[in-house]
Amino acid sequence: MKKLWGGAFSESTADLVDRFGQTIHTDLNFWQEDIIGSVAHARMLGETGIITKEEAKIIYDGLEKIHDDGPEALRLDVEDIHTAIELRLYELVGDVAGKLHTARSRNDQVATAARLMLHNELLIVLDLIKSLQGELLVQGEKYKSAIMPGFTHQQHAQPITLGFHLMAHFWALQRHGHRAEQLFKLANYCPLGAAALAGTSFPIDRQMTSDELGFTAPIPNALDATSDRSFIMDALHVCALIMIDLSRISQELVLFSGREFGFIKLADSVTTGSSIMPQKRNPDMAELIRGRTGRVIANWVTLATVMKGLPLGYNRDTQEDKPPLFDSLGKVKDSLQLIQLQLESCEWQLDTMRDATKGDFSTATDLADYLASNGTPFREAHEMVGKVVIGCNERNITLEDLDEKSLNEICPEIPVEALSVLQPEDSVKRRESFGAPGPKAMDVQLAQAMKVFESRGFEEIV
Amino acid sequence: MKKLWGGAFSESTADLVDRFGQTIHTDLNFWQEDIIGSVAHARMLGETGIITKEEAKIIYDGLEKIHDDGPEALRLDVEDIHTAIELRLYELVGDVAGKLHTARSRNDQVATAARLMLHNELLIVLDLIKSLQGELLVQGEKYKSAIMPGFTHQQHAQPITLGFHLMAHFWALQRHGHRAEQLFKLANYCPLGAAALAGTSFPIDRQMTSDELGFTAPIPNALDATSDRSFIMDALHVCALIMIDLSRISQELVLFSGREFGFIKLADSVTTGSSIMPQKRNPDMAELIRGRTGRVIANWVTLATVMKGLPLGYNRDTQEDKPPLFDSLGKVKDSLQLIQLQLESCEWQLDTMRDATKGDFSTATDLADYLASNGTPFREAHEMVGKVVIGCNERNITLEDLDEKSLNEICPEIPVEALSVLQPEDSVKRRESFGAPGPKAMDVQLAQAMKVFESRGFEEIV
Amino acid sequence: MKKLWGGAFSESTADLVDRFGQTIHTDLNFWQEDIIGSVAHARMLGETGIITKEEAKIIYDGLEKIHDDGPEALRLDVEDIHTAIELRLYELVGDVAGKLHTARSRNDQVATAARLMLHNELLIVLDLIKSLQGELLVQGEKYKSAIMPGFTHQQHAQPITLGFHLMAHFWALQRHGHRAEQLFKLANYCPLGAAALAGTSFPIDRQMTSDELGFTAPIPNALDATSDRSFIMDALHVCALIMIDLSRISQELVLFSGREFGFIKLADSVTTGSSIMPQKRNPDMAELIRGRTGRVIANWVTLATVMKGLPLGYNRDTQEDKPPLFDSLGKVKDSLQLIQLQLESCEWQLDTMRDATKGDFSTATDLADYLASNGTPFREAHEMVGKVVIGCNERNITLEDLDEKSLNEICPEIPVEALSVLQPEDSVKRRESFGAPGPKAMDVQLAQAMKVFESRGFEEIV
Amino acid sequence: MKKLWGGAFSESTADLVDRFGQTIHTDLNFWQEDIIGSVAHARMLGETGIITKEEAKIIYDGLEKIHDDGPEALRLDVEDIHTAIELRLYELVGDVAGKLHTARSRNDQVATAARLMLHNELLIVLDLIKSLQGELLVQGEKYKSAIMPGFTHQQHAQPITLGFHLMAHFWALQRHGHRAEQLFKLANYCPLGAAALAGTSFPIDRQMTSDELGFTAPIPNALDATSDRSFIMDALHVCALIMIDLSRISQELVLFSGREFGFIKLADSVTTGSSIMPQKRNPDMAELIRGRTGRVIANWVTLATVMKGLPLGYNRDTQEDKPPLFDSLGKVKDSLQLIQLQLESCEWQLDTMRDATKGDFSTATDLADYLASNGTPFREAHEMVGKVVIGCNERNITLEDLDEKSLNEICPEIPVEALSVLQPEDSVKRRESFGAPGPKAMDVQLAQAMKVFESRGFEEIV
Repeated sequence: MKKLWGGAFSESTADLVDRFGQTIHTDLNFWQEDIIGSVAHARMLGETGIITKEEAKIIYDGLEKIHDDGPEALRLDVEDIHTAIELRLYELVGDVAGKLHTARSRNDQVATAARLMLHNELLIVLDLIKSLQGELLVQGEKYKSAIMPGFTHQQHAQPITLGFHLMAHFWALQRHGHRAEQLFKLANYCPLGAAALAGTSFPIDRQMTSDELGFTAPIPNALDATSDRSFIMDALHVCALIMIDLSRISQELVLFSGREFGFIKLADSVTTGSSIMPQKRNPDMAELIRGRTGRVIANWVTLATVMKGLPLGYNRDTQEDKPPLFDSLGKVKDSLQLIQLQLESCEWQLDTMRDATKGDFSTATDLADYLASNGTPFREAHEMVGKVVIGCNERNITLEDLDEKSLNEICPEIPVEALSVLQPEDSVKRRESFGAPGPKAMDVQLAQAMKVFESRGFEEIV
Repeated sequence: MKKLWGGAFSESTADLVDRFGQTIHTDLNFWQEDIIGSVAHARMLGETGIITKEEAKIIYDGLEKIHDDGPEALRLDVEDIHTAIELRLYELVGDVAGKLHTARSRNDQVATAARLMLHNELLIVLDLIKSLQGELLVQGEKYKSAIMPGFTHQQHAQPITLGFHLMAHFWALQRHGHRAEQLFKLANYCPLGAAALAGTSFPIDRQMTSDELGFTAPIPNALDATSDRSFIMDALHVCALIMIDLSRISQELVLFSGREFGFIKLADSVTTGSSIMPQKRNPDMAELIRGRTGRVIANWVTLATVMKGLPLGYNRDTQEDKPPLFDSLGKVKDSLQLIQLQLESCEWQLDTMRDATKGDFSTATDLADYLASNGTPFREAHEMVGKVVIGCNERNITLEDLDEKSLNEICPEIPVEALSVLQPEDSVKRRESFGAPGPKAMDVQLAQAMKVFESRGFEEIV
Repeated sequence: MKKLWGGAFSESTADLVDRFGQTIHTDLNFWQEDIIGSVAHARMLGETGIITKEEAKIIYDGLEKIHDDGPEALRLDVEDIHTAIELRLYELVGDVAGKLHTARSRNDQVATAARLMLHNELLIVLDLIKSLQGELLVQGEKYKSAIMPGFTHQQHAQPITLGFHLMAHFWALQRHGHRAEQLFKLANYCPLGAAALAGTSFPIDRQMTSDELGFTAPIPNALDATSDRSFIMDALHVCALIMIDLSRISQELVLFSGREFGFIKLADSVTTGSSIMPQKRNPDMAELIRGRTGRVIANWVTLATVMKGLPLGYNRDTQEDKPPLFDSLGKVKDSLQLIQLQLESCEWQLDTMRDATKGDFSTATDLADYLASNGTPFREAHEMVGKVVIGCNERNITLEDLDEKSLNEICPEIPVEALSVLQPEDSVKRRESFGAPGPKAMDVQLAQAMKVFESRGFEEIV
Repeated sequence: MKKLWGGAFSESTADLVDRFGQTIHTDLNFWQEDIIGSVAHARMLGETGIITKEEAKIIYDGLEKIHDDGPEALRLDVEDIHTAIELRLYELVGDVAGKLHTARSRNDQVATAARLMLHNELLIVLDLIKSLQGELLVQGEKYKSAIMPGFTHQQHAQPITLGFHLMAHFWALQRHGHRAEQLFKLANYCPLGAAALAGTSFPIDRQMTSDELGFTAPIPNALDATSDRSFIMDALHVCALIMIDLSRISQELVLFSGREFGFIKLADSVTTGSSIMPQKRNPDMAELIRGRTGRVIANWVTLATVMKGLPLGYNRDTQEDKPPLFDSLGKVKDSLQLIQLQLESCEWQLDTMRDATKGDFSTATDLADYLASNGTPFREAHEMVGKVVIGCNERNITLEDLDEKSLNEICPEIPVEALSVLQPEDSVKRRESFGAPGPKAMDVQLAQAMKVFESRGFEEIV
């Protein structure tokens, strides 16, 4: 296997050593960014006179041709993408290719390519977030009056609406978009020119390459530039948070599509069957997203464990930074699309959801609130309603069934007017505090969401 | 054990159940924030007429007294801090205490207290970061010319300076400060008034409580407000990143204080001895920080694993959010101080560090750069210097020992002028690219660092 | 703070340093084992003549008194439990106490105490596993004919019985018991006498202390004896596996106790209410077990991360081995009991479970099997039954509703005799393969389970 | 994409859905085991008369041909390996292929193949462990007298020998071999015939397939058989423990090969160079093993997180069990070989190691032991030697330099005979306690190690 560093070595490396150290297949994920970084470096070498402008032009013309030819033209039996591209450059332009690596090292080169790649990937993730938010917003509006049980402890708590429920996911995604943007800002500093760890004696112009590559500024300490992987940790963190929220949606899809809930019918196009049970319609995509969240969480663990206790300066351990990153980004991109696909194509079973709120005592809080708003301390009201619940259970009736007579028997202190607050629709309608599912509050929320949705990027959190 | 929710229950809970669910001891970490949140809520209830202003005043006067009395006056045999405070309030003001819980639930109450607590803790962390950065800046300036070996792969790579090395840690901390500030901005939205999951029918004013408590705005979806724990994940992430960098410093302290390196002498006040070996002087603090980084990484894992696949709405699982948070914050605060303490009190062994660069071939790159700057393509220069290294090894001499005669024998293509670049001091002096350890570049870096250090907060990253 | 190692130190340690390094509070978990280890060591020192028998007797009499007095008599303002006990010994017996630490170090002392403690804790865990298995066995027998839906992908798959379902958990616990026993065997080797890392020049008898303390044999390499923490990793792994299975039971309890399923009614004594919603009956214990599984998983991560990359020889990092161990063991012990408590006191809603299998098409496989048993290749039979399912859905009928006429219309290739296999009870009854829920197969399984249950320990896996 | 379950579906799945659910590429890791499982199943179907013997023969002849043709003949554009093989079987033998899936499901099929595959992989791992142990044993013997510093807290503690140090790793590997064997025993139970979750109404003979495939017994509960993944967790745990110990060796190789230590020279064949620094010789393999330990730890986390909270019955989430398993096994196999390769080809720098013990005060314990063996309580002896260390430091001499005069000045209580114990070689020679590095103790240890090494398997731990 051809390497860039064989000068002082008398023996060649063992085959297993070569294979264990080889990264070319992972590196293909950023072959373009590696070339782009080299073009900027070559141009700067020419501009500063470190090499001649003619040499620089030959080099970056060669690089452009490599870019146009695509990765298919590269040798894959080499150590890494940097080697593959440089060897190809030699083939195309001859010995002047050897001048490209002046005043840089693979340490700053790979850090540069990784940051450029991360930028490109984050843009895609941000688009997919916006897209999924758009779907949630449409359905949030469409189902803003569709009654469903609201859960705490996975038990019926209070009636809410489907639109209100879906909008909770909208805001979570808004925060993730914001995080991804912030991450990008923090990562967008240029390591190129840091060389191995300590810069170079060549009169390079790091501002020039930083500007050309779209970075905010060059990183002010060369050792830091080559040792830092915290921007990848940030990316792995944001990926994990996105996946965790998608796993929560997935868990809801799995439960809601089950026979017991029956709240949603997933489309054939996103469900799968069983090789043995002909009737099965399995929410595999939701299950896989939920399951793969485990991997994306573990990807963060991988790099955290790798970095812990590493002294400064490039250590080869950090080669393990990119497999988890590519894996997490890939899973996040797929999963965002798959959640959207499932939501777009599903049929919410609105009647079933509405019916599920019947007889579930989920307006008990309304009764307590009614009493409290008439002067009973809430704690006492809570205890009184507790008695009502017991009384209903003993009579085998629900809160909605409660009539004047039963109420008087169970808890005569409660005025009969209270009976008016016990229907789920009424309960929702009265919940008009900011952020609640009541109709006016919900319109306010939807308008606020539309505003952040329509603004470019994710600067606003609410 | 006294609970807030016993109304509809006919049997009491088992002892083990009580103990397993009890959180009062952890909760003591935010007893103040819980009271502060209640004060704001009570005042709002009074202002909006949900309770009378007199009732509100009685309640918040009571709360203030509880605050003044401190946690010692609270019962610790209850379920949680909310219960302890409310019971005490009953003792102080009687049945009107029962009105405090109007239009809220423990779900929004605890989320509010957690965010307030996080804010307070982050301020301390930010101060400690600044403080450690100050020490690094002082030593960065002081040791900007102190030669030491720079490492990659934990092998000597190129000569650098101690000041340059220390400043790499400065910039890492700057990013952590920035992250912590961003995290605070993202977390600083108010869940109070979200109630159990779906707001309330009382005419509460969430803007008022949000403003009074110093939040940016109320959270626009009540279900999101009570289900979201991603702000704690962010905090655990930033804590993990800080600890990882402190573990890297620690690893350096452990290695550098060992006999083989001998670069640093740690003070007696931060080292410990052995119960069996009288001569031992162990860098225990560095080891403990390195080890406890494992726990802080695992704290992130804890909550990630807890949240994965949880449907929306409060689930009791999320009670596991606070133990890792308090633990991580505590370890970060201690560790920042302990790193500073070790650096403040250490004695760098400057001569040893300088001598370590002798005979280590770490100016080989300078030789290659010299050749490259005279027109040899870098790749060829790299191979030629490789031969020089082999030749020196065969002759059992170092690069600094190389004279005209040996050079001619080994590699006659290299001009003798090249011999002038082989001393470590010269090597460092010539590395004047931006971010490199050369004297001018280093002054630029120190000035830039001073500028971000002196600005309030951590808005600037470089 | 008093330490055992101050001889060569001229300055005292800083307060924060003391606090950060202090472990006395965690150590209280094995104060007894520390004393027991010391008694054996002292006795051996006397037997071998390293100290006189009289000195040895004075020392272990003193240690026994410390043991009898309990931890209340120990000072807690010291570094660790070893220091506390030794200081107390000095108070009781004077300067001869200083001879106890002959030929040992805290490194082998703490490793010995940790292994003894683990042994004691594992015995408790094993008992709790047996106990929970006993409950599962009782209910497995009691409900062996109680029909319920069996799930895959959390969708109805085929009818099973509650007894069959519960027995699946029985076997998982059997494996955990087996693992814990194996772990104990692997851990049960004695590090005492390994001293700091390299044994001692005193003529100690490690076989004697190993035997007296009940270990299988002394560890044959002193460096290994003080560096190894893999036995704690094993314990953390087994704890995590137990918790994962308990989290799976918990998830079932949460779902089954919800209104949608309604399969189980949890007792008041293991459920909790809401501070705002008077009707709530929350499965908090199940939720907490599920949530705390996150912590127990993370405890494994903690130590894995601590140990990674540590050179041999005691490193202070490993002090982080005990907090996760105590935490995991504690949570496992509580959770095993709480699952048992929930199962003992619950009321299974057998009619609801039986009714849930109506109309769920879960006997479709039976139909396919019927066809296959009559010569149709299973793949074709699977496709034919797929058509039947579609046909039923179009007619809005269930499989049980299918009559001769409809069957002929939908899929005339299927003989009418096939209609006899479509009732859930029949479906279960016909599943008599080994390990299936059919009545005879189930009796075989219960007998097999009873056999392993009644044997001492967990040697048998099935 | 062709699927096995399309019967009741009217729409085809989306492309992204297909890709997200596709596992064929991972599955290629156990294509053989899948065929072997099917052969046994087909044979049993024939023997029991569920299909005719002729049909069975056609099927398993077809399967054998598929096996002989190898994976190249399979279609890779299908969902999974099961589908690929079944489709190929149809091509080869026609419609009778459809009878193979009688009385089984992919749920039991994949669990069977996974257990068979794990068995085969573990055998390789066990061989590689033995092989590395062999190398350690050879070097343990060869270097049993080669003095080197022993470390605690990464500081010089007491002199030991290289052979003693290497043997510590031998015993760790012995435990891992034992664990892997135990894991195999626990995993070696047969799920085949469990079908989807609840067995089958066909009169299958699970004992027959279990025996033919070499399992200990069929798993006695079909739901457990298809839901359990704890055997994979065990495998991931053992892989993590092996990697953690290899990472510890790696850390030693990295440190010891560095200029400061200079204890070892790694061969060219296992080191790599730098693209910029011609003199570099980097211990990349050791760094990569150390780094990839992070991934192997995270692989355990992946599956732990996936399994937490999953109800029983196959859930698609568990598809995430195999990528971490294959990844961990692959890394363990490579890393075991690479550690061996590095040790086989390295040159220990015995003089450097011996010289490193000069002047490091590491015989201070010997002095304390000498005093203690003459009746001074060890604690007092420890304090006296502490004074000696200070005294030497003040005089700028080492312990070995200490003469009668200096000793008298520093600590007149110490008799001059004590001076005889201060040379490193003498210190090692006197450490003859069981498990210590003294010559006789070391011979005992080597003999004990040889005995467990030569026994088949890893039944013995010491």
